[in-house]
Amino acid sequence: MRHDHLITSKQLSRTDIETVLDRAAEIDADRAAVADRHAGTLLGLLFYEPSTRTKMSFETAMKRLGGDIVDMGAVESSSVTKGETLADTVRVIEGYADALVLRHPKQGAATMASEFVDVPLLNAGDGAGHHPTQTLLDLYTIRENAGLDDLTIGIMGDLKYGRTVHSLSYALSNFDTRQHFISPESLQLPREVVYDLHQAQDGTQIREHDSLEEILPSLDVLYVTRIQRERFPDENEYQQVAGEYQIDPETLEDAADDLTVMHPLPRVDEIDPAIDDTDYAAYFEQAHNGVPVRMALLDLLLSDARGEDDE
Amino acid sequence: MRHDHLITSKQLSRTDIETVLDRAAEIDADRAAVADRHAGTLLGLLFYEPSTRTKMSFETAMKRLGGDIVDMGAVESSSVTKGETLADTVRVIEGYADALVLRHPKQGAATMASEFVDVPLLNAGDGAGHHPTQTLLDLYTIRENAGLDDLTIGIMGDLKYGRTVHSLSYALSNFDTRQHFISPESLQLPREVVYDLHQAQDGTQIREHDSLEEILPSLDVLYVTRIQRERFPDENEYQQVAGEYQIDPETLEDAADDLTVMHPLPRVDEIDPAIDDTDYAAYFEQAHNGVPVRMALLDLLLSDARGEDDE
Amino acid sequence: MRHDHLITSKQLSRTDIETVLDRAAEIDADRAAVADRHAGTLLGLLFYEPSTRTKMSFETAMKRLGGDIVDMGAVESSSVTKGETLADTVRVIEGYADALVLRHPKQGAATMASEFVDVPLLNAGDGAGHHPTQTLLDLYTIRENAGLDDLTIGIMGDLKYGRTVHSLSYALSNFDTRQHFISPESLQLPREVVYDLHQAQDGTQIREHDSLEEILPSLDVLYVTRIQRERFPDENEYQQVAGEYQIDPETLEDAADDLTVMHPLPRVDEIDPAIDDTDYAAYFEQAHNGVPVRMALLDLLLSDARGEDDE
Repeated sequence: MRHDHLITSKQLSRTDIETVLDRAAEIDADRAAVADRHAGTLLGLLFYEPSTRTKMSFETAMKRLGGDIVDMGAVESSSVTKGETLADTVRVIEGYADALVLRHPKQGAATMASEFVDVPLLNAGDGAGHHPTQTLLDLYTIRENAGLDDLTIGIMGDLKYGRTVHSLSYALSNFDTRQHFISPESLQLPREVVYDLHQAQDGTQIREHDSLEEILPSLDVLYVTRIQRERFPDENEYQQVAGEYQIDPETLEDAADDLTVMHPLPRVDEIDPAIDDTDYAAYFEQAHNGVPVRMALLDLLLSDARGEDDE
Repeated sequence: MRHDHLITSKQLSRTDIETVLDRAAEIDADRAAVADRHAGTLLGLLFYEPSTRTKMSFETAMKRLGGDIVDMGAVESSSVTKGETLADTVRVIEGYADALVLRHPKQGAATMASEFVDVPLLNAGDGAGHHPTQTLLDLYTIRENAGLDDLTIGIMGDLKYGRTVHSLSYALSNFDTRQHFISPESLQLPREVVYDLHQAQDGTQIREHDSLEEILPSLDVLYVTRIQRERFPDENEYQQVAGEYQIDPETLEDAADDLTVMHPLPRVDEIDPAIDDTDYAAYFEQAHNGVPVRMALLDLLLSDARGEDDE
Repeated sequence: MRHDHLITSKQLSRTDIETVLDRAAEIDADRAAVADRHAGTLLGLLFYEPSTRTKMSFETAMKRLGGDIVDMGAVESSSVTKGETLADTVRVIEGYADALVLRHPKQGAATMASEFVDVPLLNAGDGAGHHPTQTLLDLYTIRENAGLDDLTIGIMGDLKYGRTVHSLSYALSNFDTRQHFISPESLQLPREVVYDLHQAQDGTQIREHDSLEEILPSLDVLYVTRIQRERFPDENEYQQVAGEYQIDPETLEDAADDLTVMHPLPRVDEIDPAIDDTDYAAYFEQAHNGVPVRMALLDLLLSDARGEDDE
């Protein structure tokens, strides 16, 4: 990888993605080998929005590489309350850390911030924008369970607002994939995303559906996302729609035996807990994969920043 | 110790307790010997309720063993606000850490959570339920100051709602102890706790009092707890009751010279600061003992989890 | 340095200051040499008020020396909400850490707290009181950019309420300095501070101005502080006053080419971002200097506490 910053999954070529996933697999197979690899390195965490798993998994990744973190803490107890700009904050914290992780509610925040700092900056989500490390751990999970080429994937739920889904779809278009999008009409993929996917060089195949039933048997992977109550003005409409896009053992009766069910978590009631102990369930594994994937990314960026070979 | 999880002090036999306390004494005598013993180990902290000393002392314990922590942070800035269940949260965080510490406002939460994870889980307090590591550091402090056998202890204050008191009493019933309970009538020990203590195999002796005066001279240890204002509908009644269960130099005039005064802290005005510099006071020592005791526990559980001998 | 605690910059002699700054320069020149120097050391952080840069830079400093921190966390999630006194809290946390850092809203808090603990305590700001580590990093930045002797410095903005300014002025009076104070009349330096500065043994020269214009050309350093909106009952008056004490490229037309512009940050609009990329700007460097200066301080205090030579 030859990037100073990781802002969007769009910047990642197929080769970039494979470099990260290969390194993650290496690390996952022998974590002890890298346990001191970045001793003395400090990762600065700037989370302007709540996050459990992204933040903890970055923290875990850095510590599993022998490094440590310095955390800005919650926005309410920071200088942000005194009116400091993001540009100033990142320039100050850059002086403490060897790399930065930024989550911010405003789209474009990571791009803007990256222009002010010399250390590598990783975007951990910028509003409706991008969340590339989520995409990479999704890709890693898909590759481990079903492979990334000749893949048939269903992506279901809120496809309109979900940045996770958009990032994943763009990244999958680097591979030989058939992508089926399943959602209520009001939560369909934005037209510009559909357009972009059709333009993607490797010609991934795209189809949209309003029901899972017809394409379920053909799927290798079913990626479920949450439909948020607050998207619906009417509670009854929400109840009706949400109910149709929930997964339980009955729903999966026609699925292939080796179907992999994924979810970026947290879930509310999109997936029945009865699925958790079946072979279908890969969503906790998926969350756990955040660690080796972020270890791989940090390792590549930090080694790069020090002028080392990428190995 | 042969337990995967530590949920309640009731699960601890006299041998278990002695194993932990012996290991704590060993560690306390030579901390340098274990300074790198668990290098690379990550302890996951899940505190759903505020805590200063319990959380910091677990963190200190893990770091004094060469390990580190990953902290879920405050509930307000976590996925809990998105409606995630405790079962899902612990299963995700299990992927980051080698052991978990859980504090939760609901009784039974630790038991439930432990059923979903494979790594050792330590209960750091579950509502009105249990708080076994507090009990172990109390026992350690008692043993260091007065010994655990042939012990006469007074336990005073709010005996009705105090989980600390109930856990301690159960654990002490493994030893040859005379337990005196001193409280206003409205805050007496719950009848089922009294019943359980009478049933305890080693036949610890139990007596209840409404005043300290008569039994003070016979005590080796006086364990004071806070009487909470909010238990009383009437402010005047609170003032009157609370005043009778406060300790100052005058109160202790008839105490044995080697009396040990303990308190789980934080105190408000149950113990006059004039006691702090006397030989009676053991409450800061007690708080500090949280470190070697939790180091011992973590060491035993983590060594056990790795299949090592207990040493 | 032969101090157990660092409470105020007033306690620091010229020799003390030079010892810290020299050690900071040594460390800054070769950080790798101290990367494991305090391995196993834990620094306790007690921040009763929000802080980004002070807290993170103490954390960074300790970690860059090979140590780690234990953080009390936000006051809302601590035992402070249960009514615990500061004296009790520091005595408990003393049992976890090898040194303590305290920020507290009440003037005098650090002095009081230091009387209850045996480990070194560093004041990281006590209300309108002192903030000596800020002063040391300011002095370090001045020395690196302009030298501390034969210095002409302008200090501008809110001189009435700014503890940063008072501490810096006292410390500078140990050196051969000409100090110019520029502020609106309502935010002038308190008379007792002026009196103290006139009494200072080394006879630093003091002058007060209501405009920057006349003395700008003579300045080696211009130290800008924020004028807070809430000091003014009338919004119009604030706008007028604040506007006169803002720095932009036009303001600096008559400045010396080697003028150094400093600011303790966070800034709001006291310094135009157009200055950021000029050679005048030293405020981000100043923030970054918090790390080597605090590393030096911790190194000196911890080595001292262990009975080592100061090197």
